[in-house]
Amino acid sequence: MPRRNIKFTIQYDGSAYYGWQIQPDVPTVGGHVADAIEKLCGKRVRVNGASRTDAGVSALCQVANIKIDTPVPTENMAKALTEMLPDDIAVVKAVEVKDRKWNAINSPSVKLYRYTINTAKAPPVMEIRHCWHFPKVLDVEAMDKAAGLLVGMKDFKSFATASDTRISSVRTIKSCCVTVEGERVYVEVSADGFLYNMVRNIVGTLVEIGRGRWTYEVIEGILEAKDRTAAGPIAPAAGLCLMRIDYEDL
Amino acid sequence: MPRRNIKFTIQYDGSAYYGWQIQPDVPTVGGHVADAIEKLCGKRVRVNGASRTDAGVSALCQVANIKIDTPVPTENMAKALTEMLPDDIAVVKAVEVKDRKWNAINSPSVKLYRYTINTAKAPPVMEIRHCWHFPKVLDVEAMDKAAGLLVGMKDFKSFATASDTRISSVRTIKSCCVTVEGERVYVEVSADGFLYNMVRNIVGTLVEIGRGRWTYEVIEGILEAKDRTAAGPIAPAAGLCLMRIDYEDL
Repeated sequence: MPRRNIKFTIQYDGSAYYGWQIQPDVPTVGGHVADAIEKLCGKRVRVNGASRTDAGVSALCQVANIKIDTPVPTENMAKALTEMLPDDIAVVKAVEVKDRKWNAINSPSVKLYRYTINTAKAPPVMEIRHCWHFPKVLDVEAMDKAAGLLVGMKDFKSFATASDTRISSVRTIKSCCVTVEGERVYVEVSADGFLYNMVRNIVGTLVEIGRGRWTYEVIEGILEAKDRTAAGPIAPAAGLCLMRIDYEDL
Repeated sequence: MPRRNIKFTIQYDGSAYYGWQIQPDVPTVGGHVADAIEKLCGKRVRVNGASRTDAGVSALCQVANIKIDTPVPTENMAKALTEMLPDDIAVVKAVEVKDRKWNAINSPSVKLYRYTINTAKAPPVMEIRHCWHFPKVLDVEAMDKAAGLLVGMKDFKSFATASDTRISSVRTIKSCCVTVEGERVYVEVSADGFLYNMVRNIVGTLVEIGRGRWTYEVIEGILEAKDRTAAGPIAPAAGLCLMRIDYEDL
C-alpha cells in the first residue's frame, strides 16, 4: 500500500464538463485532475471523488483523495496542480491524512448542496450556466414548508432516479430550506448521503409546489409512495453546486 | 427604404462566442441575432450593433438596430427572439425608432464599460469566464489616481491597438474610476467612443501601476507618446462587459 494518503479540496465550474467521473473520450473534471496528478507526480493513480457530480454540476468543495508514493511535498501540491488544470478547475487545498485507509467516498460525512433558481423574466445570461431559469412567480413560503417535511431519517426512494441501485434508499436529511434573494431562489439541502439525482428531484418537486400545482403537504404522500413517478420532474443540472463536505472522522 | 427602424437591447455572456461581428464558420453573437430575426420575420437584414465587442467580451446592454418591413408587432419581438436564441443571449427590449435614419453605431452616445479583476489567490472558478484572475495585491488608490488622469477630451492613440485605422484617435472619457469590493477590483470607464481595444489597454496599464511597476504619473507621458508601445499590455477579454449605452438623440 502506498505510504501517503492525500486529501484534496477542489473547486470547479462544471458547465464545460461531462461530470466528475472519468469517461472515455469526453472531458471530465476527475479526468483532468487525474491527468494533472500524473504530470506532477509521474504516476497514474485512482482519484476518489466524494461526490460523483453530474455533467453541468459545479462544486465549491469537492473532496477527493489519492494514495500515492511521491517525493512532491503536500504543501506544494494545490498550487502546482492548479497551474496544470484548466482555469475552471482549481485544487484549493491538499493535506496528508494520517489514516492510510481513509477514503473520501466511504467515510461518514455531511454534504451540503445549494440549488439556484433564477426567476427573472429575461434569461440571466451572465449566470445561465449556474442556475435554472424559471421565469415564474414561486411561493417560496410553501416551498420552504415542504422542504421542512423532508428533514429527518427517511426513505427517499421517490426522489432517486430509477437507475440508482444502492441497497438502501434511507438517508438522513439534516437541513433543507428555501430562501429568496432578489430574483434568486435558493434550495439548500444537507444530508449524510444522497441518492442518484436526489437534490435535483427534490428541487423539481419543490418547484411544482412553488408554482401552485401541488400543496406542500404532498411531500408526505410522495415519501410514502417510494416511487419516483410520485415526485416532480428533475430540475436541470446547471443550478446545482456542491458547497461543503464535513467528515466526522477528520 | 424599409418602413420600420427597430432598436434592440441585447444581453449576452460572450465567453462562448467569437465576438459580436458576424464571421464565416464561427459562432458570433451578431450572427445568432441575425439568424433569430430571419427566423421570426422571414427576412435576412443587417444588424447594426453599437459596439463590436471582441471574442470573450460580455454585454448587459448591447444596442443594435435593424431596418425591416415585417408584420411582427414590436412588443412581441424581444420575447420571441429570446426564445429562438441560445440561452446565453437575450433580447431584453425592442422599440421602434421614429427617425428612420437613426443608427445604433453612428448616433452620438456615451458607452459605459466595466472591467473586473479578481485578485483571489485561487482561480475563482465560478466567475473565471467573466474576470481577469490576477492573484496579486493591487494598489487601488494609485490605479484610481491614474484613471482620473485619463478623464477628458484627449488623444488616446497610445491605448489603441495598432490595427485601429480610424482617422481621429481623440475621444472624450467622461469618467474613469477604480473601485474595490472584497477580492474584486472594478475599472469603470465611460466615453463618447472607444478606439479598438481601448478599455483593455487602459486596464492593462492601470494594472502595471497597481502592481507597483509604474507610478500613476506615467499616464501623462503615455498620452503624450501617442504610441501603443508606451502603454501597458492588453488585459484579457474575459473581464470586460459593456454595461450601458445612452444615446443623445433618443
